[in-house]
Amino acid sequence: MNSVPTPHHAPVTDAAVAALDAADPLAAFRARFALPDGVIYLDGNSLGALPRDTVDRLHHVLHHEWGEGLIRSWNSADWFHAPRRVGSKLARLIGAQPHEVVVADSTSVNLFKLIVAALRARPGRAKVLSEPGNFPTDLYMIESALRTLGDGHRLALVPREALASAIDDDTALVLLTHVHYKTAELWDMAAMTQAAHARGALILWDLSHSAGAVEVDLNGAGADLAVGCGYKFLNGGPGAPAYLYVAERHLGALETPLGGWMGHARPFDFVDGYEAGPGIVRFQCGTPPILAVAALEAGVDLHLAADMRAVVAKSRALAELFIDLVSAYGEAHGITLVGPPRGAPRGSHVSFRHPEAYAIVQALIARGVIGDFRAPDVMRFGLTPLYLRFADVAAASQHLAQVMAREEWRDERFRVRSAVT
Amino acid sequence: MNSVPTPHHAPVTDAAVAALDAADPLAAFRARFALPDGVIYLDGNSLGALPRDTVDRLHHVLHHEWGEGLIRSWNSADWFHAPRRVGSKLARLIGAQPHEVVVADSTSVNLFKLIVAALRARPGRAKVLSEPGNFPTDLYMIESALRTLGDGHRLALVPREALASAIDDDTALVLLTHVHYKTAELWDMAAMTQAAHARGALILWDLSHSAGAVEVDLNGAGADLAVGCGYKFLNGGPGAPAYLYVAERHLGALETPLGGWMGHARPFDFVDGYEAGPGIVRFQCGTPPILAVAALEAGVDLHLAADMRAVVAKSRALAELFIDLVSAYGEAHGITLVGPPRGAPRGSHVSFRHPEAYAIVQALIARGVIGDFRAPDVMRFGLTPLYLRFADVAAASQHLAQVMAREEWRDERFRVRSAVT
Repeated sequence: MNSVPTPHHAPVTDAAVAALDAADPLAAFRARFALPDGVIYLDGNSLGALPRDTVDRLHHVLHHEWGEGLIRSWNSADWFHAPRRVGSKLARLIGAQPHEVVVADSTSVNLFKLIVAALRARPGRAKVLSEPGNFPTDLYMIESALRTLGDGHRLALVPREALASAIDDDTALVLLTHVHYKTAELWDMAAMTQAAHARGALILWDLSHSAGAVEVDLNGAGADLAVGCGYKFLNGGPGAPAYLYVAERHLGALETPLGGWMGHARPFDFVDGYEAGPGIVRFQCGTPPILAVAALEAGVDLHLAADMRAVVAKSRALAELFIDLVSAYGEAHGITLVGPPRGAPRGSHVSFRHPEAYAIVQALIARGVIGDFRAPDVMRFGLTPLYLRFADVAAASQHLAQVMAREEWRDERFRVRSAVT
Repeated sequence: MNSVPTPHHAPVTDAAVAALDAADPLAAFRARFALPDGVIYLDGNSLGALPRDTVDRLHHVLHHEWGEGLIRSWNSADWFHAPRRVGSKLARLIGAQPHEVVVADSTSVNLFKLIVAALRARPGRAKVLSEPGNFPTDLYMIESALRTLGDGHRLALVPREALASAIDDDTALVLLTHVHYKTAELWDMAAMTQAAHARGALILWDLSHSAGAVEVDLNGAGADLAVGCGYKFLNGGPGAPAYLYVAERHLGALETPLGGWMGHARPFDFVDGYEAGPGIVRFQCGTPPILAVAALEAGVDLHLAADMRAVVAKSRALAELFIDLVSAYGEAHGITLVGPPRGAPRGSHVSFRHPEAYAIVQALIARGVIGDFRAPDVMRFGLTPLYLRFADVAAASQHLAQVMAREEWRDERFRVRSAVT
């Protein structure tokens, strides 16, 4: 095992790691999650862990609200307003006003709504701008919107470094993912928003890898639109409902292409003609999945109990620790850091490149260290401030060092690819 | 209380009701639901009751699959295939092949997918045909699709009796709700499908008030497309995920306007360009809400344990009993049956019209009889074969008779309208 220190700093001692945990203002939050024994979970950026409160909350919703209350709970348990209620709570985590956010559908469907709405709001402009390698569904939903509108719009994919200067007077919309799902690169939201506005374009931010882990200030940045998923750092459960944000100044003007009955001005009048509901309401579409919304609410409530500044600070400290530790041996084993260097702004995961990334991730999982593989050669480790200890990150690094030193990834059983990764 | 018998039959005796329950082959299913004490629940067509198995199933998904399994459960618990697995089970309830049905999104969103797909498959035809008073979101989503496509399509609403003859060579799509949400009127699916096909149009059936309660044979009728919700007779939970059906012959050809990553041919290759997945897969869009899909699966599994022919027969028998009982006094109190007369084909709810329908429904709820009000003057009573006894229906009728005889609906507290009804 190679122990060359990185250029940045001295090797990290066990005592230093223990000191970080001892000083962690969020340490108590770990006990509020049901984490399995023998596992170091570094995939909370893909599926967040189960909050203990969620179990109680779902028990209540199942037995009391659904079982006992039945249809009455649309009123008595206020299911009807749940998407707006949870949206208004979520707003506090992303720098939005309560009436600018609603929980609805999936991230993909919300992307479609807002892409079409934005294109309609910028007539005469043909271009939607994004970056190659953006999270696939963001690009697929742009394609979907353009195919459905069928009126001469086009998608332009421009590499990150050239993107700001590619915004022109023909650009209707810029769609960017705030934290890159693979590399953890972080866009400067305020600067890019300003660049879009300077040319009269709208901007739509995908916050899926941001909310609950990095600082997001939609209002502060002047952002127009945003979407995000509930199942990553927000711990809303597998496939949790998504959310969307529309800046107050656009709320009256933008129209959704998916005008369903839950977005109607008077849904219970059951009239034949569609009339868009006021404000953010219209961006709901069908009946909201109450069980899933309740689980998301429990996850969001847990975040609201934490100091977001402490969460953001711990996210960065965890990432820097992990980079420091892996840097001490990684290079000798062909492991290279992907994305922002140590100390630079970043998202709450750390990715490394290695030709054998797939097998290395499988070998780590066999050791109880759960990260994930992203094709073709990236191993990705999510660092969730609410339930990870610095000691977990240090232990994970030791496991990785041993996998590399012992070449455990050569084992045939780690090389067979499953259908879903 | 007026006791004039209806023209159809003699007054129903308690002994006759007891005999119906004694002979009910589905009687044992009632114990498999968690029903509140003191309630006669006649709103299972709006929100189905909680199956006891659902509690166990969600406990397992929460603790073992999410809590313990975490991200691994996409493989180990096969979350990835859950929408197709539950779809294939649902197919057995609606006369479809397993690979023709998938669980996804909401009914509204699925309507949008299939309306746009159908219009694209019938170029040169301008008209979408439906009926006035169809369930609102069906009409709203037609409006949404036409507004988004923006290419000269139009919606034509034609009353039920004239609809078949309104299908012409300019009709791209006929969209009908199989069982009318308010009146329980039932379309002849085979005849209307044939009428659409005779003019080269496609037909899309909304099965929200059908699946799990009346006979549905999509393949037998030659139906092209269908959607439906999971939270009514399927007992999938409040706002349960919806499903959609595409006939095998259309599976390769139809394109979804919402091509998200879960409908991609190779979602985990994370490529920039969209490539539609094979068959029904492409009609998925975003990440499926696993907790909600699991609850729906438990509801569907319960239905599969029942003999669907017995379910359909009991649905009709419950409706006929209720009509008989209310007919004995209804007319004298200004209560008139809405929709199909006794003995005619119908859905699994019975609706009556009365100018004071709202207050009457509230007075019944105060007595523990839960039905619902549909504007402007309809009281609607859902009759769910799996958990209702004939004695429940008889008792509900007695409560209604008393509410009318004592004019309980005049009470001020029953006349204040809540925001959601």
